[in-house]
Amino acid sequence: MAATAAPAPQRVRVDPGKLEDFMTEAYVALGMPREDARVCAWGVVFADLRGHESHGVSNNVLGSYVPGLRSGDTKARPNIRILQETTVTSRWDGDQGMGFVVGHRVMQWVIERARQHGAAFAAVANSRHYGMAQCYSYMALEHDLIGYSLTNGVTPGVVPFQGRESRLGTNPISVAIPAGEMPPYLLDMATTTVAFGKIQNYQRDGKPIPPTFALGRDGRPTTDPNEALAAVRLLPLGANKEGSGHKGYGLGLMVDIFCGGLSGHGFRATPDDPEAVSHFFGAWRPDAFLPLDEFKSLMDGRLREMTQTAPSEGYDRVLYAGLPEWESEQDKRANGIPLHPSVVEKLRGLAGELGLDFDISR
Amino acid sequence: MAATAAPAPQRVRVDPGKLEDFMTEAYVALGMPREDARVCAWGVVFADLRGHESHGVSNNVLGSYVPGLRSGDTKARPNIRILQETTVTSRWDGDQGMGFVVGHRVMQWVIERARQHGAAFAAVANSRHYGMAQCYSYMALEHDLIGYSLTNGVTPGVVPFQGRESRLGTNPISVAIPAGEMPPYLLDMATTTVAFGKIQNYQRDGKPIPPTFALGRDGRPTTDPNEALAAVRLLPLGANKEGSGHKGYGLGLMVDIFCGGLSGHGFRATPDDPEAVSHFFGAWRPDAFLPLDEFKSLMDGRLREMTQTAPSEGYDRVLYAGLPEWESEQDKRANGIPLHPSVVEKLRGLAGELGLDFDISR
Repeated sequence: MAATAAPAPQRVRVDPGKLEDFMTEAYVALGMPREDARVCAWGVVFADLRGHESHGVSNNVLGSYVPGLRSGDTKARPNIRILQETTVTSRWDGDQGMGFVVGHRVMQWVIERARQHGAAFAAVANSRHYGMAQCYSYMALEHDLIGYSLTNGVTPGVVPFQGRESRLGTNPISVAIPAGEMPPYLLDMATTTVAFGKIQNYQRDGKPIPPTFALGRDGRPTTDPNEALAAVRLLPLGANKEGSGHKGYGLGLMVDIFCGGLSGHGFRATPDDPEAVSHFFGAWRPDAFLPLDEFKSLMDGRLREMTQTAPSEGYDRVLYAGLPEWESEQDKRANGIPLHPSVVEKLRGLAGELGLDFDISR
Repeated sequence: MAATAAPAPQRVRVDPGKLEDFMTEAYVALGMPREDARVCAWGVVFADLRGHESHGVSNNVLGSYVPGLRSGDTKARPNIRILQETTVTSRWDGDQGMGFVVGHRVMQWVIERARQHGAAFAAVANSRHYGMAQCYSYMALEHDLIGYSLTNGVTPGVVPFQGRESRLGTNPISVAIPAGEMPPYLLDMATTTVAFGKIQNYQRDGKPIPPTFALGRDGRPTTDPNEALAAVRLLPLGANKEGSGHKGYGLGLMVDIFCGGLSGHGFRATPDDPEAVSHFFGAWRPDAFLPLDEFKSLMDGRLREMTQTAPSEGYDRVLYAGLPEWESEQDKRANGIPLHPSVVEKLRGLAGELGLDFDISR
């Protein structure tokens, strides 16, 4: 995680388009069809553009995607198929494909059906880590749809409220809602106070964590980031009784049920497939409810009102979900994605191993 | 709010069935059709059964329902109608009817369509306070559906994350999911750390509130419950930067958009209708995704697992959303609803005013 931590001057700004092209070639070299490789490359580069490095190319190389494809644990050419469907609902088998590919395929079905019928939903089992939850809710926006994306996690790393043992994943919720002139509303939140990446930042900076982040191995709230990372017991959003931690826990369990329940997969990895996760996707067509221009006008008014309300002490403005990520994306599309030199070197190493050209410079 | 606060020995246990019958007669006397009166009576008594007195008969008498009907601000015989619809979506005008009646009517449409097509959704404008959000998600359970219920609030009483002025309501989310042998999952949460009732409890007990509950009139977190109640600036779930308050704010804004946006109503009361609120309802049919017995078996396993995992220090067990309310309901159906004597006297007074018999004894 040192890459995430580096001060800005050390970073190298690279070209987003070239980076996506390189990642596409890498995935093709790892056995994926070109079209699917492009989907995965888009997903990881989109994370870097949105400012979520934890889900960007550094994770892609250091993390599970490339090793999974190499080991065969993740199938480069899965047979993704529908197991049950109605006009507006479906259940899928992801066949251990890359989560990006599975999610993209299923969300395409959801979007098509929602465009036709006003709303549509799908649950999918036997998938893999699918990157940022917002990759799929975001897909709905270009069709003027509201997009919805949930996933459960591979390994339990979150305790229930009042519990001391991890029983849930970070189980994020993403909702994307189109606006007119304003950048869209795009919520993408783990149902915990924070994800592990934030604790790693405190560890790196040598700072204590607030007691609302995680429990230690003794089952009590800890302020030691090392202990929190060793214990793997994140607290749900709200954390404790005074923070209403039962609410974050309630949301996390809801995500679990929509993903693991409606997909038929269940709620934890099985011995014969320890990496399996399940997702749930949805879309609503606003103009199935009211004229689209009327909806977009309401959205613009509401979102603008939020950015114009008075900030509290210590803040210079009020934001809304998706606005900081949208601003990050504008900056990085114009000025390049700032990567830590060690990440660039790892990508160069991958290029060498796969026999690919490597040029991601601006 | 003294009624909520009384120690148990002072309470009078009353008969839930008789209480509901009395409330039905009261609403009929206030001009409502008997069928609609029954729906409202069920809603307020259900709140008392579930242990949410803030939404029970005491609020009904002391609060807005009866005065609203008397003033004519809430219509006893509204013309609730569909403004736009597709097979699985619709938008409604509540015509300033009682929120219970509007919500019940619209949720019935949602349930019928979801049973036919797998999922269905509706937004409704020009309604009134609809009691507990779970009244409507709960309706789905007897049809083996997942139920969904959102509402925005009449008056802004919640600040955006990083903001100092109230711009949102407490905007609750309720999700009800059927199980087999286990009591159903039933989430019903304001998207704030707490609602005002909780702060009133601290005020009554003369205790300081945690700084995660609300801001004072100076726009800073306050520990004084009197100041918090005077300022009307609740904090979103997560409260501050260390608690990830942007998440609760993000959820609150999502509720606002589904209710006020998709209903076309917009995001605040208008001068010509200062009491208007809007709602959003939904339902999914689990057996549109997978066989129902398979889903229920997964639910039972997951919910049971949660109740069996080890509690943390200071707690005797782990619960899940809806379980404590289900236990409350079992107790109160068997042993009566414990009302404060002052609430009983107020109901008796209402009976006198309306010329009704009054017997709610067990």
